[in-house]
Amino acid sequence: MAGPIEFWFDFSSPYGYLASERIGALADEHRRDVVWRPFLLGAVFKVTGAGPNALDPMRGAYFLQDFARSADYLGVPIKMPAAFPFAAVTPSRAVYWQEAQDPGKIPALVHALYRAAFARGGAIDTPAAVATAAAAAGIDPAGLEAGLQEPDVKATLKARTDEAIERRIFGSPFFLVDGEPFWGVDRLDQLAWRLAAA
Amino acid sequence: MAGPIEFWFDFSSPYGYLASERIGALADEHRRDVVWRPFLLGAVFKVTGAGPNALDPMRGAYFLQDFARSADYLGVPIKMPAAFPFAAVTPSRAVYWQEAQDPGKIPALVHALYRAAFARGGAIDTPAAVATAAAAAGIDPAGLEAGLQEPDVKATLKARTDEAIERRIFGSPFFLVDGEPFWGVDRLDQLAWRLAAA
Repeated sequence: MAGPIEFWFDFSSPYGYLASERIGALADEHRRDVVWRPFLLGAVFKVTGAGPNALDPMRGAYFLQDFARSADYLGVPIKMPAAFPFAAVTPSRAVYWQEAQDPGKIPALVHALYRAAFARGGAIDTPAAVATAAAAAGIDPAGLEAGLQEPDVKATLKARTDEAIERRIFGSPFFLVDGEPFWGVDRLDQLAWRLAAA
Repeated sequence: MAGPIEFWFDFSSPYGYLASERIGALADEHRRDVVWRPFLLGAVFKVTGAGPNALDPMRGAYFLQDFARSADYLGVPIKMPAAFPFAAVTPSRAVYWQEAQDPGKIPALVHALYRAAFARGGAIDTPAAVATAAAAAGIDPAGLEAGLQEPDVKATLKARTDEAIERRIFGSPFFLVDGEPFWGVDRLDQLAWRLAAA
């Protein structure tokens, strides 16, 4: 099998959620693995000077409208979380804890978390909320909740976020395939086009 | 015929060029007119605090790569201008001068200007360069060059740019159809989808 699709995303990114609902099928179709890479986009924004689209006075209203339209266009259900944007530290750590236990359950965990936030409008920024989503994904919630406190887990998220900055992964979702970067759920068409030609 | 597609663009915007190569056929297919609206994105950036993508240290290299890939994907020839980004005042004024003479020639003028810049890599920021492009579009170059100095023409470009800020047209290309905004050449698919359903 050829190299994987690296899928970088922030759990507070609505477009990251949309991408998470499409990347698995796209990867299967082109016989690629997906490497799931949550990171903290806020740390990147500190370098770029950018900020969350939804909070921009000139652009915020557009992005909420565009997100809803993009979801309709892609056929993905959405309900915006009551608190948005939210801190993505805890759900991101959950994924890196799971990676150290059994990476095979990562897709189910990411879907459970993202859907709790953006398909049902709930909060996923606390250990209890993350544990609830984990249980729905067939993961031991008590083990996960303890794992969130492990120094290695915290260090892994920090290292991945530093790696994102280093590799100029400046937005969410962001994909890297065969050394080529693709930014945005609206680049999945070009990503599929590249993979079809590879 | 239903309401027109307003097509807002900055002449220094590579993605605006790509959109200019596709919007005419899309509008014809859905039986809509196109209203061509060049404006000065730099004036909007002063409000939003944003800047040209190509000059961003974290994102600039990506955007040049993405523009080339997007052009390939859309089947549009490209050659980046040697001087980029460039001041779009003069070619924009040319369009508003032409609008006051004979709006029917606007598409040919926009294509001649945009292609000189982004298909052949030339400069279009001087009256002489704009006049050359106009001649290729069947427009009297001497009349156009004189027209660039008319106070009404200058005032119209300023008014359109103020209008863009007022209406939160924060990027290029930007489309408005039936009151709905679409930002980016990568939203032409959603725009066509909306028009098909209208």
